[in-house]
Amino acid sequence: MSNKIEPTEKTSLKRIPNRGNFDREVINSILDEAFICHVGFVANGQPFVIPTAYGRVGDEMYIHGSAASRMMKSLADGIDLCVTVTLIDGLVLARSAFHHSINYRSIVIIGNAEMVTGEDEKRKALEAFTEHLIPGRWNDVRQPTELELKATIVLRLPISEASAKVRTGDPVDDEEDYSIPVWAGVLPLALKAGEPIDDARLDPSIKPQEYVQRYKRF
Amino acid sequence: MSNKIEPTEKTSLKRIPNRGNFDREVINSILDEAFICHVGFVANGQPFVIPTAYGRVGDEMYIHGSAASRMMKSLADGIDLCVTVTLIDGLVLARSAFHHSINYRSIVIIGNAEMVTGEDEKRKALEAFTEHLIPGRWNDVRQPTELELKATIVLRLPISEASAKVRTGDPVDDEEDYSIPVWAGVLPLALKAGEPIDDARLDPSIKPQEYVQRYKRF
Repeated sequence: MSNKIEPTEKTSLKRIPNRGNFDREVINSILDEAFICHVGFVANGQPFVIPTAYGRVGDEMYIHGSAASRMMKSLADGIDLCVTVTLIDGLVLARSAFHHSINYRSIVIIGNAEMVTGEDEKRKALEAFTEHLIPGRWNDVRQPTELELKATIVLRLPISEASAKVRTGDPVDDEEDYSIPVWAGVLPLALKAGEPIDDARLDPSIKPQEYVQRYKRF
Repeated sequence: MSNKIEPTEKTSLKRIPNRGNFDREVINSILDEAFICHVGFVANGQPFVIPTAYGRVGDEMYIHGSAASRMMKSLADGIDLCVTVTLIDGLVLARSAFHHSINYRSIVIIGNAEMVTGEDEKRKALEAFTEHLIPGRWNDVRQPTELELKATIVLRLPISEASAKVRTGDPVDDEEDYSIPVWAGVLPLALKAGEPIDDARLDPSIKPQEYVQRYKRF
């Protein structure tokens, strides 16, 4: 069985095709490292792009939101979506202004979302969602009540029309610029955790769990 | 003169209005700290969301790309856009799964881009762009040639219909959950620079500039 996603007109890269990637493993590794996506949709002819957190279970992505949210209700109607996930890996500092670039990994998913109606799948999606944000958390906290589940819309989006785009490595300068005596290379960037900050009402004898103290995305 | 941007139907927040902010200072500080935006547009009825870097000069945002890029050409036609910028500030770890959240700052800009045609404004935009990515860089590197300028489309987007959305601070738990003996609070997250990596063809006697070694976004 192929582990590739079929490119389509909407997901194939026209200009720099060697940056495109349709491997499910690559796509999943990017989706698992990031946790914020940008959801694009059209309302009254106007495109909107809204950031939101997500989870992944197998070949499906879950997003969730308040049952009172206009966006969630529109998306639940199955309108056309584009969900984009971007990781910034570094600044690419070339010897010419023109060849400056950014190392990044991004995913574009095209499709239509469906509302998750079964309570079991909804709970499983919320668990995946919380564990995606911070592995180990779900079992430590109070589980959702029926009322909370009702107040939450969970949407499922198949990861079937999708592509990754990746830039890695050194700047690519014009041959004659390599002699310019200026530092060039990559300045790596990554989302890093700082020191946990206790909630103002926390009993000070309670310390952050290991999974909070040693948090990292990759 | 008011330093507020006028809310519109497209930029006003319906559900949690106290998270909305129309202060130009707040909007600019977020735009200056981030450097990647997600551009939403519609092509053949399908929404697309593409990440790209940007610069800001006053009340205008600049994005740029190859003159061969389909996206840049579509955007240059003045189609409706939504440009969204998101900074992730931390994980908000509550005592219940339901009240977990993310601290973030985001900007949504609605509008239409215009192609920058004057060579002077184009150069200034590219300078702002490079300096936005890494202050101090522009004067150290080879400036764009006329050919490079021709190969680049620069688009100007007025920051006139825009809003910020911000969540900060502690989790907000249900009153009866505060007695649950689990750590709760905020785990700060930020994009941090690692050690600069020399280009493979760099003369090893050339060291990274101070602005590379001490790089940070805020």
